[in-house]
Amino acid sequence: MIHPLKEFQIINKIAQSSQVIREDTRLGIGDDCAILSPPPHCEIAVTTDTLIENIHFPSSISAHELGYFSCAASLSDLAAMGAKPSWVMLSLSAPSIGESWLTDFINGYSNLLEHYSLQLIGGNLSNGPLAITWQCFGYLPRGQALLRSGANAGDKIFVTGDLGLSALAIDIITGQNTFTIETPETILKQFYYPIPKIELGMALLNIASAAIDISDGLLADLDHILERSGVGAEILAAQLPLSWALNNLEENSAYSLALTAGQSYELCFTIPLDKEAEFYKMIQRLNSSCTCIGRIIQAPQLKVIDKNGAPINFNRRGFQHWQES
Amino acid sequence: MIHPLKEFQIINKIAQSSQVIREDTRLGIGDDCAILSPPPHCEIAVTTDTLIENIHFPSSISAHELGYFSCAASLSDLAAMGAKPSWVMLSLSAPSIGESWLTDFINGYSNLLEHYSLQLIGGNLSNGPLAITWQCFGYLPRGQALLRSGANAGDKIFVTGDLGLSALAIDIITGQNTFTIETPETILKQFYYPIPKIELGMALLNIASAAIDISDGLLADLDHILERSGVGAEILAAQLPLSWALNNLEENSAYSLALTAGQSYELCFTIPLDKEAEFYKMIQRLNSSCTCIGRIIQAPQLKVIDKNGAPINFNRRGFQHWQES
Repeated sequence: MIHPLKEFQIINKIAQSSQVIREDTRLGIGDDCAILSPPPHCEIAVTTDTLIENIHFPSSISAHELGYFSCAASLSDLAAMGAKPSWVMLSLSAPSIGESWLTDFINGYSNLLEHYSLQLIGGNLSNGPLAITWQCFGYLPRGQALLRSGANAGDKIFVTGDLGLSALAIDIITGQNTFTIETPETILKQFYYPIPKIELGMALLNIASAAIDISDGLLADLDHILERSGVGAEILAAQLPLSWALNNLEENSAYSLALTAGQSYELCFTIPLDKEAEFYKMIQRLNSSCTCIGRIIQAPQLKVIDKNGAPINFNRRGFQHWQES
Repeated sequence: MIHPLKEFQIINKIAQSSQVIREDTRLGIGDDCAILSPPPHCEIAVTTDTLIENIHFPSSISAHELGYFSCAASLSDLAAMGAKPSWVMLSLSAPSIGESWLTDFINGYSNLLEHYSLQLIGGNLSNGPLAITWQCFGYLPRGQALLRSGANAGDKIFVTGDLGLSALAIDIITGQNTFTIETPETILKQFYYPIPKIELGMALLNIASAAIDISDGLLADLDHILERSGVGAEILAAQLPLSWALNNLEENSAYSLALTAGQSYELCFTIPLDKEAEFYKMIQRLNSSCTCIGRIIQAPQLKVIDKNGAPINFNRRGFQHWQES
């Protein structure tokens, strides 16, 4: 028997769980607004992300997984700008909340908040369908954000980590069973606990010419960079860093999943040739796994090339959160 | 027949509808984050508010009403701090969105954004149950926010506008029909189009000792001021500014509704005696309707006194968004 908590109990428990107190917070949880007191001459990156039950995560997700996953997904947008995380707000809607669920949910995101010195400064609590909205704030040195619009012909294209695992996770979660998967628990664990690439994003400031996170899938998100920058790209399929989870798949299926799998929180970014040496030194210092997968070209098209130099076509460019009619 | 719009069509339409471009916005809609470029030595108030269909608004609400109401409700939290509005983010979740619904929804909030020079800098779009989350940002002079914690014994207690109409609106919307209501359309119109008390909130900086908006009901929200300030209050029922909508009600029912009706976006604030003259001059200049309803007392209790000086008791202190178990 689960005893649902009352509104003030939930708010108190969330407020008390927030361990980080920042000097640049004038006022945290407890008034009509939070008040930020930023130092002069900074800029502030801000992003918001909503995850809804049965749209962005399944009912089978544990409270700990949901707490971590929802927060990490939103932090990933700060990483893509090169911002240094500072504050978060949490809006939680749920039909009913029990004590142990709430404890697990809070534990899920708390490590992230502590690791990045993020203060939880407020939010909203509603009775309603299960949905989580995070707003994340981070600092940027003035005028130095990593934008989608800075890529130039000749720049090399990189991704972090490896690709494609999230497609298998979604296959498991939705029960589609398109693939034969031997270790579903391991895949789901990795899927629900992505590491936002915060340190790398910050280190890419003044090195990368453009960056994005690939939450909608590599091709779809790279397309945003191309469109904003007015350029094209040539991707070499054989260089794609495939996840171990794709090992049993036929080559073209693996490429296809690597290129289109959404809800992955790796970064895709472009490095100008004259910054390459500095870039390699930096990723060695950070011990960061990055792979060159192609280059930016002048012609405004997105080509994927197989190992023989022939173009590969894919029907589905990326993950659509919205159900297309 | 309604043709639902696709994700990029909705985002484009919302982005294009945003007319305000601010100089202190480094980057608006269109990248992983928005980037704020605040002037030195300011502070930034930030708040978020989620409204969910059938919890905070009924399915019968029009798109225009929803656009206005949801935005005004969230701006009311800025008003309560005395903040000057600057930016908003909009997170919209809906099962399907048609063109005319979206046009009306945008028209509903656009006047507010233009009136307050608010730039829409981003947000989130999801397929899901109908729910609206606004985040509002505003500037505050350093260290001068109106907090809940500043009330002192002797301060006079004021409310803006009049009280109780929202209780009748909720009675109509929920179909409870507790009251005989002659002009339901007029009541709903006024309920769905509240005016956030932004100008007054800003003018109360350095005059009021504490402030809050009464979205949870006057008694419940005044209680927050009392708790934070470590004081009590004496409210004179006969001084409560009752809405015209309560005219037909028996006196004690009217008082009860005025004291407890939630989803009203008036301000309640406290004025120290030595600021009273300045306060009255200010509200005359703004042509603002404010009523003194009682005073702050030392003893930490909240008393409502009838015209004979006897205490009145009310069972229900205010609006609970959350269903109590």
